[in-house]
Amino acid sequence: METTLNYISILGSFVLAISGALTAMSKRFDPFGVLIVAFATAVGGGTVRDMLLSGKSAFWLEQTSYIHFILAGTIFAIVFKSRLFHINRPLLFFDAIGLALYTVTGVQIGLQYELASVNCVILGTITGVFGGILRDILVNEVPVIFKKEVYATVCILGSILYLLLHRIQLPTVILQTVPVLFIIILRLLVIQFNISLPSLYADEREARRNNKKL
Amino acid sequence: METTLNYISILGSFVLAISGALTAMSKRFDPFGVLIVAFATAVGGGTVRDMLLSGKSAFWLEQTSYIHFILAGTIFAIVFKSRLFHINRPLLFFDAIGLALYTVTGVQIGLQYELASVNCVILGTITGVFGGILRDILVNEVPVIFKKEVYATVCILGSILYLLLHRIQLPTVILQTVPVLFIIILRLLVIQFNISLPSLYADEREARRNNKKL
Amino acid sequence: METTLNYISILGSFVLAISGALTAMSKRFDPFGVLIVAFATAVGGGTVRDMLLSGKSAFWLEQTSYIHFILAGTIFAIVFKSRLFHINRPLLFFDAIGLALYTVTGVQIGLQYELASVNCVILGTITGVFGGILRDILVNEVPVIFKKEVYATVCILGSILYLLLHRIQLPTVILQTVPVLFIIILRLLVIQFNISLPSLYADEREARRNNKKL
Repeated sequence: METTLNYISILGSFVLAISGALTAMSKRFDPFGVLIVAFATAVGGGTVRDMLLSGKSAFWLEQTSYIHFILAGTIFAIVFKSRLFHINRPLLFFDAIGLALYTVTGVQIGLQYELASVNCVILGTITGVFGGILRDILVNEVPVIFKKEVYATVCILGSILYLLLHRIQLPTVILQTVPVLFIIILRLLVIQFNISLPSLYADEREARRNNKKL
Repeated sequence: METTLNYISILGSFVLAISGALTAMSKRFDPFGVLIVAFATAVGGGTVRDMLLSGKSAFWLEQTSYIHFILAGTIFAIVFKSRLFHINRPLLFFDAIGLALYTVTGVQIGLQYELASVNCVILGTITGVFGGILRDILVNEVPVIFKKEVYATVCILGSILYLLLHRIQLPTVILQTVPVLFIIILRLLVIQFNISLPSLYADEREARRNNKKL
Repeated sequence: METTLNYISILGSFVLAISGALTAMSKRFDPFGVLIVAFATAVGGGTVRDMLLSGKSAFWLEQTSYIHFILAGTIFAIVFKSRLFHINRPLLFFDAIGLALYTVTGVQIGLQYELASVNCVILGTITGVFGGILRDILVNEVPVIFKKEVYATVCILGSILYLLLHRIQLPTVILQTVPVLFIIILRLLVIQFNISLPSLYADEREARRNNKKL
């Protein structure tokens, strides 16, 4: 199961690389700019997670298959760019799978390091969402996950579910399958019904005035 | 004293979380976007400091009370947002306290790792200011501390003062209280009299032309 | 040779600090904002590299001469700003030297940690280019290296050359000199003939529409 998860997680990096590459291409980056953004999108979340933990090198330094899949994803995105910009449903499906796998990996590493529950949830969420945040910082945009459809919330709920199932000591196969499926399905429902949290709107002029002083 | 500092430092994270949350709300982020920015603002400085040091996990992975206070700060900011955007004096006061405590913690960890003085000053400054830098990067703004009132300078001066007092081997209570008070008072004076360093203005068109080539 | 490389690498930090300081001045940052951007530009690449590796503190925490040279570079840039904005050829020359030295250092550390070849190339590239990326993120611009002349590509090719020479077990002096010269010359040719990779242009409106959904 461990290795199955691992394989699917590598597939997740393939999909996230495509997402990063498409964003970079839409910003007219050159090929190596595209590759760097794809790389940061695909490994960003797990890398930040590993940096936070002492005694842990970035995961892709130990398992190079990630890099091959990122290269493959980037080339795939470059070759099929015109088609990929049209069909986005399949991409969103894979993105949801990547998100689910990454989140669960993050929680598992938190448990392995015997961290508090709240920290496991945070590590799961960081692993799931930080790649997309880095992608948007690199192309100089406000991270899309802060505003659009429910995204981080799905990771947080999925992480909490994992911890609950872990506490009642379910067999490993259920423990790993259920939260992954939960995140995928929840994320697909969010996309399907275009669910978004209300923005905590505050009067912008006043806010800005205040921020200046702060 | 150690623990007193620790408690007040946790309070600092509460205030910085409010600052992050207010900024994110003024950008119309959704609730979890607000939480993520609040979190990054509150722990960003110390986390970057801990990443720089080998063998040190991020401090909030070991002491979860920070996270509870950040959650509390975020919820507080969301609930009282309309009032908080009006009264900003009290916030600035707490922000100065947070800044002072964070800076001193950074210098202390540098001394503990037996780093050179200049590195202790840098760690102190990073711990103090990097949360605000991250906050502004996440909302896609030029970090406010680079342009507005004296901010990093206060950390640098406070860090140097700490090192000087440390060298003449003052009792711990003075060693920790004086730089903290120094930073708070200096920062409040800066706000009160609206002191800012002159920008090193360079002709913008030429600068830009040059940067393009560089 | 090791120490020669080290000395020149410190000189590289001097030049990168100038580049960072000039960019920050063109954005009208205050003096300490300028210093922080100069610092991030000069040590950013190597620092990210060191964060990725477990058991490695940031290099400038162990060797403070870097910091003195960055301070010197920043002061130099502030004092001679009006002239520096005019003459940029010499700067680009030093920038190329810094890039070459940094890249080679990154690859060497990868080999020292017995990483896979592809990871050595990545570490070399990160060390070479990440300072410039951080500089542009801090001043809230799209990183220039993603769009303008060939930059990251030069690091990648130089890193691969180093690994090839390393595999055929050439004497150390050749192993270290050839890739450094290769990167410097290639980079200068790129500047001289204004070589840039074609952007992988994709229709922007469609791209944006797609990204929103993603």
